[in-house]
Amino acid sequence: MEYISSIAQLQNAFAKLPGVGRKTAQRYAYAVVTMPQEQAEAFAQALLDVKKQVKFCSVCGNITDKDVCELCQKRKHNIICVVKEPKDVTAIEKTQCYNGVYHVLHGTINPMQGVGPNDIRIKELLARVAEGGVDEVIMATNPDVEGDATAMYIAKLLKPLGVKVTRIAQGVSMGSELEYADEVTLHRALEDRKQL
Amino acid sequence: MEYISSIAQLQNAFAKLPGVGRKTAQRYAYAVVTMPQEQAEAFAQALLDVKKQVKFCSVCGNITDKDVCELCQKRKHNIICVVKEPKDVTAIEKTQCYNGVYHVLHGTINPMQGVGPNDIRIKELLARVAEGGVDEVIMATNPDVEGDATAMYIAKLLKPLGVKVTRIAQGVSMGSELEYADEVTLHRALEDRKQL
Repeated sequence: MEYISSIAQLQNAFAKLPGVGRKTAQRYAYAVVTMPQEQAEAFAQALLDVKKQVKFCSVCGNITDKDVCELCQKRKHNIICVVKEPKDVTAIEKTQCYNGVYHVLHGTINPMQGVGPNDIRIKELLARVAEGGVDEVIMATNPDVEGDATAMYIAKLLKPLGVKVTRIAQGVSMGSELEYADEVTLHRALEDRKQL
Repeated sequence: MEYISSIAQLQNAFAKLPGVGRKTAQRYAYAVVTMPQEQAEAFAQALLDVKKQVKFCSVCGNITDKDVCELCQKRKHNIICVVKEPKDVTAIEKTQCYNGVYHVLHGTINPMQGVGPNDIRIKELLARVAEGGVDEVIMATNPDVEGDATAMYIAKLLKPLGVKVTRIAQGVSMGSELEYADEVTLHRALEDRKQL
């Protein structure tokens, strides 16, 4: 294969996407080569439009095309659900059982990767709670080491403000089999058992 | 997650890439949201550049930015290696043991998906061989049902032209274990055994 600079450049661009290695990036670049012209143009335009149109909500930090997102505009602010990323908002909204607002941290504390408490939107959360009117803050960061640590860290900062802080339940997943559950999950499921 | 048209559009664009489903497309689109502005612009530009710069070689059908690709320009045309896609050329070039030219079919015969002999570059291959000066045609289509069938089909058309037609060897892969080889592969490896 002779070297074609534009293909190499496109490969590099694809390789910057999460989870895309050299081989996959090459595959995507070849797909673009054989793609109809209009489709490639629409693709390029969509990239530029996203950068132009998408902003972060000035209240909760979620993705929006307005200054304050729709959820922040129409919902009560007495319960705040704290998540790591915008896609976690999507995941929780799909359950249709939560009716409060969110706070997107845009990361979790991860000293190994050099992400400290000041690198994520913790002080913005403290400011929201300090303003008053908040009854409960639900920590819905991922059930992993970083997510747990971040939840604990934030809970410690929030409690002096007199707000109830909760953590989403951890246990065995719906539809899974005990046999295949990992030990930590099973341990938590037993520990947090509920009376029927 | 509120609906943002530009994100939905970008997701659709990503979802058209090979092997990209809805979830992955969403993940890529979010990555673009948090990407630096210049990086997204370079990405969009690379897409457009590829469509503008990349053509198919008028001789072998491989990807190039010239009218006739470098390989066709500098190599002897007495051996032609027939492959399914441009990336197969890359794969064979990496071995550094082939010194002839290529012929890219841009597909293999696949009646189930409505791809017949006239939909791939078979007549262009016949024309090249009919011009004379070709000693051997190596069928290097994939070792699967479609690749084998296409190789057989083309071989039948080429033989009357008095050219030697060969097929790349099939057998157990280097570094693999017999225990895990599938039956067809092992069958071929036994059948095509070589005297030492």
